[in-house]
Amino acid sequence: MHGYTGDKDAYLKRLRRIEGQVRGLQRMVENDEYCIDVLTQISAATKALQAVSLGLLDEHLKHCVAQAAAEGGQVADEKIAEASAAIGRLVRS
Amino acid sequence: MHGYTGDKDAYLKRLRRIEGQVRGLQRMVENDEYCIDVLTQISAATKALQAVSLGLLDEHLKHCVAQAAAEGGQVADEKIAEASAAIGRLVRS
Amino acid sequence: MHGYTGDKDAYLKRLRRIEGQVRGLQRMVENDEYCIDVLTQISAATKALQAVSLGLLDEHLKHCVAQAAAEGGQVADEKIAEASAAIGRLVRS
Amino acid sequence: MHGYTGDKDAYLKRLRRIEGQVRGLQRMVENDEYCIDVLTQISAATKALQAVSLGLLDEHLKHCVAQAAAEGGQVADEKIAEASAAIGRLVRS
Repeated sequence: MHGYTGDKDAYLKRLRRIEGQVRGLQRMVENDEYCIDVLTQISAATKALQAVSLGLLDEHLKHCVAQAAAEGGQVADEKIAEASAAIGRLVRS
Repeated sequence: MHGYTGDKDAYLKRLRRIEGQVRGLQRMVENDEYCIDVLTQISAATKALQAVSLGLLDEHLKHCVAQAAAEGGQVADEKIAEASAAIGRLVRS
Repeated sequence: MHGYTGDKDAYLKRLRRIEGQVRGLQRMVENDEYCIDVLTQISAATKALQAVSLGLLDEHLKHCVAQAAAEGGQVADEKIAEASAAIGRLVRS
Repeated sequence: MHGYTGDKDAYLKRLRRIEGQVRGLQRMVENDEYCIDVLTQISAATKALQAVSLGLLDEHLKHCVAQAAAEGGQVADEKIAEASAAIGRLVRS
């Protein structure tokens, strides 16, 4: 049971659509489509992945982190340090 | 024939690996894996897509844009404006 | 009193260094320095600002958000929604 | 003489405004303003720096790179490799 479990189907649907976008990119490259058009589609896939990340992170803060914070102590500190590290990776990727 | 045509197989291989990463993300969500682990894998897929973008853009500059610039005139201006717009989308995505 | 208050002097020092970097950029442009060198320095300033953001956000989660989460209820929900929105702006900027 | 020389005054004006934004950030931290408000202002400064980068890069492609491409040979290859590296730094920062 995690923060995103309630929205699992919605997340799976979004990830399947992103898988379709990546397969579409392969078709574009196979058909020698114009570089700039391929780049535009990669930006779309990257944004879609980023939106999934932001959604998962929001659920994570709302559930796992909020619950740990309510309990307090070392678990709370660890959960927050872990979330901050994930935010850093997200910002830099 | 485009800038990336010579490396087409390498690009297809990278895109197939990214497709595998996105399918792996679906399995992680299906198995209720820990949010932070899912986020780490999304960052990896996003970085891989970004690296493909940077590679394609480099080929595009080396071939399409360089050739247009050598011809000069309006075609050169348009190709450079188009490349700048693509770079902007890439930076903001 | 906010999450970063304890590290206020350190944050001010970092922001003053970034101010110096931006003034350095002005000198580079005034002296017609090479575009690529200016771009490299802008990337350095942008990364420094981003690092300040990630630091402030970490403090914010550790203090304001953790405290609100411990209290629970609507305040907790609002603080987390607000933090998620700030993370989204950070990721997209 | 570089690509941006013609717009030098406009770039200096934008960089002075960004310097003002960074000084504004220092005032906010000094006055213990709310973390989320500081983060919003940092995002604004980061976006302004990024826009300067994209502008300089566009000028660089239009002038330095286009001219090198027209000359061809090793200089053209080097200028394009250098621009690609700068784009990579920009995307990752």
